[in-house]
Amino acid sequence: MYAVIMAGGRGTRFWPRSREKKPKHLLDITGEKTIIQETVDRIRPIFETKNILIVTGKKHARELSKQLPKIPLKNIIIEPEGKNTAACIGLAALHIQKKAGNKIMAVLPADHAIGNPDEYRKVISAAVQAAKRDALVTIGIKPDSPQTGFGYIEQGDSGGKVAGRDIFRVRSIREKPDENMARSFVQSGRFYWNSGMFFWKTSAILNQIEKFLPDLHVGLMKIKNALGKSHEAKTVADVYKKLPSVSIDYGVMEKADNVFVLPADFGWNDVGSWDAVYELANKDDQGNAITGGTDAIFEGSINCLIHSPKKLVAVVGATDLIVVETNDSLLICKKGFSQDVKIIVEKLETKKKKKYL
Amino acid sequence: MYAVIMAGGRGTRFWPRSREKKPKHLLDITGEKTIIQETVDRIRPIFETKNILIVTGKKHARELSKQLPKIPLKNIIIEPEGKNTAACIGLAALHIQKKAGNKIMAVLPADHAIGNPDEYRKVISAAVQAAKRDALVTIGIKPDSPQTGFGYIEQGDSGGKVAGRDIFRVRSIREKPDENMARSFVQSGRFYWNSGMFFWKTSAILNQIEKFLPDLHVGLMKIKNALGKSHEAKTVADVYKKLPSVSIDYGVMEKADNVFVLPADFGWNDVGSWDAVYELANKDDQGNAITGGTDAIFEGSINCLIHSPKKLVAVVGATDLIVVETNDSLLICKKGFSQDVKIIVEKLETKKKKKYL
Repeated sequence: MYAVIMAGGRGTRFWPRSREKKPKHLLDITGEKTIIQETVDRIRPIFETKNILIVTGKKHARELSKQLPKIPLKNIIIEPEGKNTAACIGLAALHIQKKAGNKIMAVLPADHAIGNPDEYRKVISAAVQAAKRDALVTIGIKPDSPQTGFGYIEQGDSGGKVAGRDIFRVRSIREKPDENMARSFVQSGRFYWNSGMFFWKTSAILNQIEKFLPDLHVGLMKIKNALGKSHEAKTVADVYKKLPSVSIDYGVMEKADNVFVLPADFGWNDVGSWDAVYELANKDDQGNAITGGTDAIFEGSINCLIHSPKKLVAVVGATDLIVVETNDSLLICKKGFSQDVKIIVEKLETKKKKKYL
Repeated sequence: MYAVIMAGGRGTRFWPRSREKKPKHLLDITGEKTIIQETVDRIRPIFETKNILIVTGKKHARELSKQLPKIPLKNIIIEPEGKNTAACIGLAALHIQKKAGNKIMAVLPADHAIGNPDEYRKVISAAVQAAKRDALVTIGIKPDSPQTGFGYIEQGDSGGKVAGRDIFRVRSIREKPDENMARSFVQSGRFYWNSGMFFWKTSAILNQIEKFLPDLHVGLMKIKNALGKSHEAKTVADVYKKLPSVSIDYGVMEKADNVFVLPADFGWNDVGSWDAVYELANKDDQGNAITGGTDAIFEGSINCLIHSPKKLVAVVGATDLIVVETNDSLLICKKGFSQDVKIIVEKLETKKKKKYL
């Protein structure tokens, strides 16, 4: 059984710490280790290191391999360009098939935080069990609030139990809803947050790609024939240029028959913004969180997140602020507004301040 | 006629820019020039450079002389330690008498901002006129709000006119009032903010010091005999150690008879805190002020003051913030709380973080 960690993403919402060369998963924003290191450490009790593959972009491969010295270099699969999750997953499936034949693959995002890793590993093991039925299995996170920032999965009929856990057929997969819809989703008790984690046999997903994304499948077959040959990199690059950019959710999961959801609750957090980092951080009595070894003094200030490893920071009379300093930039963001950090990154692009990207 | 600029003050309220080695008047926090440079430039149309004396402390003399290359070095009078304004003024009066005999001296703080320098100079000229009557003359600022951060001067009977301007005897000099009292002061129309500017003949102030502060006068006479001699510095240091620390307001002005106030309105601002700097700064349509050549991007942020010359600063969803960055420190302060910056400085002292002072 193989794990495929998808480490694409630019992570513009973590500017100024996330940069073109350092997306979110390569940053230590939730603890002492980087998010990718935490992700790998979390699954090592259930996956052999040699069976953990990581798919990433050219720009990030070197830093990623540096952060994960135990992962063999040949397990780091480089995409020449980002083409969304369907292509990424298809490419990883080819690599596994070539290495080991038809195997179960667990597809995991590189950049999530998990509060209860023991439960997480148990759920993964159950999902792997379910995938043995030739099903496409996803994990649905039991929602505790009507988030509008996530996609949702609607459960259908019971699919029985795996490892003592209920599993359901998927009735529908929904894009990010508006607030009213999100509220009705949560109230219904039949909807889960889409975790972006998938479990299937390599043959199962490649068959479904062939059925629902034939153009992608044609491209993948060209790549398959080139794997391990001298022209592999060139073929992959040529094929990728023309591949459709489509998510596995939209391209396959919404359309296929044999799709199941395994509801779970293991303290999942997608670490989608600085607000999420604040929620995850250790806080003092005044709700202030200090990260990166920052030396900070607070006077009449509460609920602030401060990251400034190289400077003394004094905060006076301020509430609900996120302060992040790097060598060349400083972000001051009101809590609740951290989604708008990506607007800053857009402004940096249009203002030709690309050196700050 | 001589000008004496009192350049003592630590300016802890402008941390992290004001430091032990750089008090407020040596900083460019209100414009391109430093406050002391602006102060000197402002009076140069009415005082000859050779007649401008500056009294300062040992730690700051070198930087001060660097900032004011046109002021002769011998015009920079060094106090061995701070002993409040009465000693400072007495020492300056001795220097003027030794240089030029009995002259009018204008005593001006080093660290105020003036919105209307033309009117300011006219008022000074009128005050100098009034001082020729052997009076002690001060300038009272017409208050536009019941400030509790200033002392007040109460007018008494008319003293006639000087240079076409009304002048009044001083009935009382008041310490910083509470808010109710400040409001009644302003409503009465008879109270002015105490500007800390004084005008008198050197003989007049030394006579009054002899009368009301005899200990100070004894010390000053010892210094007088030592001026220009090889043991001058040692004598001044020895005498200063034992001098009473008293303000000229409390020590002389409240007690003397021949005290007058010249009411004025020339856009006076004592630049007492970062809030005052914000008030004085140029602002954009959203009320954001950027100083020090800072490169800043605002997204949904209003009424902020940003000083960070070396970094790009992005402000998202924040209102009424003061952000000041230096090489080793970063201040984030809610507008209206900048008086509390001095608490940060106190904490730095007690926490043994003296390198940030």
